Amino acid sequence: MPNPTHPPVDPAKLTAQLIRCASVTPTEGGALVLLQQLLEGAGFTCTRVDRGEVANLFARWGTKGHARSFGFNGHTDVVPVGDQAAWTVPPFGAVEKDGMLWGRGATDMKSGVAAFAAAAVDFVRNTPPDGAVILAITGDEEGDAVDGTVALLDWMQTEDEAMSACLVGEPTCPNHMGEMMKIGRRGSMTAWVTVTGVQGHSAYPHRAKNPLPAIARLMDRLSSHELDSGTDHFDPSTLAVVTIDTGNPATNVIPARSTATVNIRFNDAHSSTTLTDWLKAEADRVAADFGVEITMKIKVSGESFLTPPGALSDLVAKSVEAETGVTPVLSTSGGTSDARFVQHHCPVVEFGLVGKTMHQVDERVEVAQIHQLKAIYARILHDYFA
Amino acid sequence: MPNPTHPPVDPAKLTAQLIRCASVTPTEGGALVLLQQLLEGAGFTCTRVDRGEVANLFARWGTKGHARSFGFNGHTDVVPVGDQAAWTVPPFGAVEKDGMLWGRGATDMKSGVAAFAAAAVDFVRNTPPDGAVILAITGDEEGDAVDGTVALLDWMQTEDEAMSACLVGEPTCPNHMGEMMKIGRRGSMTAWVTVTGVQGHSAYPHRAKNPLPAIARLMDRLSSHELDSGTDHFDPSTLAVVTIDTGNPATNVIPARSTATVNIRFNDAHSSTTLTDWLKAEADRVAADFGVEITMKIKVSGESFLTPPGALSDLVAKSVEAETGVTPVLSTSGGTSDARFVQHHCPVVEFGLVGKTMHQVDERVEVAQIHQLKAIYARILHDYFA
Ligand SMILES: [Zn+2]
Ligand SMILES: [Zn+2]
Repeated sequence: MPNPTHPPVDPAKLTAQLIRCASVTPTEGGALVLLQQLLEGAGFTCTRVDRGEVANLFARWGTKGHARSFGFNGHTDVVPVGDQAAWTVPPFGAVEKDGMLWGRGATDMKSGVAAFAAAAVDFVRNTPPDGAVILAITGDEEGDAVDGTVALLDWMQTEDEAMSACLVGEPTCPNHMGEMMKIGRRGSMTAWVTVTGVQGHSAYPHRAKNPLPAIARLMDRLSSHELDSGTDHFDPSTLAVVTIDTGNPATNVIPARSTATVNIRFNDAHSSTTLTDWLKAEADRVAADFGVEITMKIKVSGESFLTPPGALSDLVAKSVEAETGVTPVLSTSGGTSDARFVQHHCPVVEFGLVGKTMHQVDERVEVAQIHQLKAIYARILHDYFA
Repeated sequence: MPNPTHPPVDPAKLTAQLIRCASVTPTEGGALVLLQQLLEGAGFTCTRVDRGEVANLFARWGTKGHARSFGFNGHTDVVPVGDQAAWTVPPFGAVEKDGMLWGRGATDMKSGVAAFAAAAVDFVRNTPPDGAVILAITGDEEGDAVDGTVALLDWMQTEDEAMSACLVGEPTCPNHMGEMMKIGRRGSMTAWVTVTGVQGHSAYPHRAKNPLPAIARLMDRLSSHELDSGTDHFDPSTLAVVTIDTGNPATNVIPARSTATVNIRFNDAHSSTTLTDWLKAEADRVAADFGVEITMKIKVSGESFLTPPGALSDLVAKSVEAETGVTPVLSTSGGTSDARFVQHHCPVVEFGLVGKTMHQVDERVEVAQIHQLKAIYARILHDYFA
């Protein structure tokens, strides 16, 4: 029953307030302070979980450790403004015009955070549930992400805080509101390859060992290999050679060394271990064929993961459908997100608004979409605790 | 009959004097002035044929346009000293020790110029021939070589000056005096390749057009192709990929563009035209296969050329054999030399001493070899006019 002393929180106004906090990673910029004030006013217990140079906020309404603890995860940090001169509005001005709210973070993802914070506050005020509502908000998603959601989850484990289900509020819709939610993500890994031969004179190639034919062959073999043709819930894995470099300006010199970088986005047909084995076998084969040395440094950003379609995805999909009339596709496409950390903790799905202008100049969001998103999140809370 | 008023010119002393002229390209350094003085003293008509910032010297003894006009070609410019601290002697000091003469240009090729100048002066003084002896000496062989021997040949054409045969005095022997002469050279050309696709995000390679798989395929195809297996007088042609560069530090970005450079040393089975056609056909094929754009900038440093074994090579080989007891191999190996310009003018061969330390720190030459080289050149002159 609505409490007349507390009008509903306006998620568009809250988004505008958050945009005005210039919280470029890892700067907190006042965004978490603002949210903490709002949440504490509604009875949430808030804890700042800062680690390294990163600020994070954990907020819980209701009983700690309750079996029904619904969580929202999101970030208030934003990427840099880029070419400031190219913006038609002040990037942190939160200008509203033509039904759009403009500014860095407008879609990614201050609107998402504002929508779930507004929905959560209204929900606990008006229909206090038997359970807990948790907000785990980080200031380091766009950066290295080592002291962000990971720090929150580490702290939660120490404190016996737990979520039974989690929704990450990142933008998930390519073009139209409601069309897509994410139930997993492909994994991502990067290999830095160095091929070393023996320097020499271009006129006497037989006295040198040119690393370039070897690196060309290896990159050709890797990029023309089909990793898989997709799995039940995943698109095909992809491999992108992102750079090959040598830096030899002398046309009469065969260089001693060349480097290349390969980025792989992989589905559940692989793991970083099987892919590392494959990369090393290919490198060894080329090294033997060309008589060069090939070394590799590998970094795994995340394994692929999946929350199989079920209760949580049904709940979210039905809420989206009820508010937008659109049935969301259950997707695992796109880059990585903090859901890769949350999935170790509890079932997690992602749903948010249209992300078209994220990370771009003149980032902006339809004001109506923010209200729609709040309504979807409110319905999810309602149905989860019903 | 020896003229007692003119003792023989000592080619080792002359080499030392030339080394003391610090004639790093394009500095004349006094080297051509010194030679002009010596040659004019022996009755040569000398003309400085300077062009651009380069000094060149043309000297003729005897009748202009005579059907028997034997020419020597060489250069007095030298490459920079490099790491001066690594030298054990002053680079322009012409120190003599252990039977060696030390200094920049000792082998490449102030000893060669001194040997043919000394031989020519003694020859015209003692046994004035029925014909002409020409010395075409440049100060720009180690540099761009556009205002060097080319300028001399241009000027000669204008002035109706001509050589009926020419010997280039560059060092030609890999290890032992007399073992190798050159009757031609492979051609050399360079292709700068640019592959342009469409930039994108590593997670969505299908929305981008990555230039790197295309450049890897093209470089693999080019470098694994056998151009030929050698011809009668030439080693196999070779192709060296000397650099591939992209300069993309972002592992989540597929770059728009990558470049590569290819250097080809080719024999008389090819010309720069047939090779350009081949390169373009390979590029077009890869461009079509990968849906990228491939452009190419080509520079031809020189076509392959050959003075077929015959009168001139026989004359030089016999003189070498008589003075050293070694029969020289007729080779077309190695990089380019100014013989590539002279070959358009008259039959040309190259013979000189052991070039082991050329362009290196502590460049040096056996003093005895300089005397031997003068004797070989003297015998060539004697036999040519006999
Ligand atoms: Zn985001
Ligand atoms: Zn030289």
